[in-house]
Amino acid sequence: MTSSRARLAVLASGGGSNLQAIHDDLGARAHEAPATLALVVSDRISAGALTRAADWQVPAVPLPKERNHALGELLAEHDITHIALAGYLRLIPADVVRAFHGRMLNVHPALLPAFGGPGMYGQRVHDAVLRAGARITGPTVHFVSEHFDEGAIIAQWPVPVRSDDSAASLAARVLAVEHRVYPWCIAAVTAGQISLGADGTVQGRPAYDFDLFAPEPRHRHPFAG
Amino acid sequence: MTSSRARLAVLASGGGSNLQAIHDDLGARAHEAPATLALVVSDRISAGALTRAADWQVPAVPLPKERNHALGELLAEHDITHIALAGYLRLIPADVVRAFHGRMLNVHPALLPAFGGPGMYGQRVHDAVLRAGARITGPTVHFVSEHFDEGAIIAQWPVPVRSDDSAASLAARVLAVEHRVYPWCIAAVTAGQISLGADGTVQGRPAYDFDLFAPEPRHRHPFAG
Repeated sequence: MTSSRARLAVLASGGGSNLQAIHDDLGARAHEAPATLALVVSDRISAGALTRAADWQVPAVPLPKERNHALGELLAEHDITHIALAGYLRLIPADVVRAFHGRMLNVHPALLPAFGGPGMYGQRVHDAVLRAGARITGPTVHFVSEHFDEGAIIAQWPVPVRSDDSAASLAARVLAVEHRVYPWCIAAVTAGQISLGADGTVQGRPAYDFDLFAPEPRHRHPFAG
Repeated sequence: MTSSRARLAVLASGGGSNLQAIHDDLGARAHEAPATLALVVSDRISAGALTRAADWQVPAVPLPKERNHALGELLAEHDITHIALAGYLRLIPADVVRAFHGRMLNVHPALLPAFGGPGMYGQRVHDAVLRAGARITGPTVHFVSEHFDEGAIIAQWPVPVRSDDSAASLAARVLAVEHRVYPWCIAAVTAGQISLGADGTVQGRPAYDFDLFAPEPRHRHPFAG
């Protein structure tokens, strides 16, 4: 059974809270987990992500930018089948993007296509959301394509922008949602329930079924009370 | 009391389902309604909006495009204090935009700043949302500024895009939400609870307080079951 199990690499530049969420989710699925966390890579030697991985006895490899070109080689050494980017700020080499077509995921902290593109990462995204006066934001999980932040969207989930939000408070609330949505998407893709079709569209998307304006319960109304 | 009541003009080009929702909402508020529906204008003589208004004994005035420049005059004749655009496809004369600064609202069927701008109206908006593969959309109510679709955002509300959605099915679901959000915003603005600040930001915004990832009830989780 484990032989058919996907081998997941998580690439992270920061503290790795999404890595933690992915690890915890796979752990909770226990023997039914569709993937094994097989490798953690960071371009920053001091990244908390590497420390977490080491604690779990998961191979944790620092890959400084001058070694970035060797990413594909590193992934091959560890028999990696799927990649999850978790706040990885380094550009993924083109050969890796091609090799992992439909098997590399990323999470962006806004509702793409809005607030994405070059320079839009971390706090900058939430600053832009607040500047625009948007009232709804939220994370986007998508397949990674040659054009970053332009891959096919797997899932999005709304997060309200509150009148008293700062970029930091908004970032924290969106991140908390990423920790729920991203592991779910990774499990669904590694299990083959969701895939990238030949036509570039996502197959077997999650079924959303919520109606925030259902007459009952009344408290679901945004402006109630 | 009625002397202090706002006098609302609704400008519509189509059937007027948002006009109906606004009329019903003001009616439901009865003597506590902060505004009176005082005028309905349409650039299309055959617009259902005019028929509805006539049925309610509300002044219903067709304003063909060659008379568009006379809009300000018409509004003055009817002592209009506030304007709600409801699918009005005609450009609002600059003098009217200036005169009704902070007192003119519009509703757009997507989450601005995404899927807005020139040519983005009606079905085209939903076609673009589907093409982009967005999973969350929804209406935006905003103050109207010189740059259309660029006014300060008063409210947005998320609507899920379903895997089997067509532009038509999505449009219907977003419209149903507009019918809830738009009248609420109009009442809040005409009552003075929400206003456009001198700094161009919205004052006294609706307090959103929903957490779709609240652990309970479980069924709120998008991927449950």
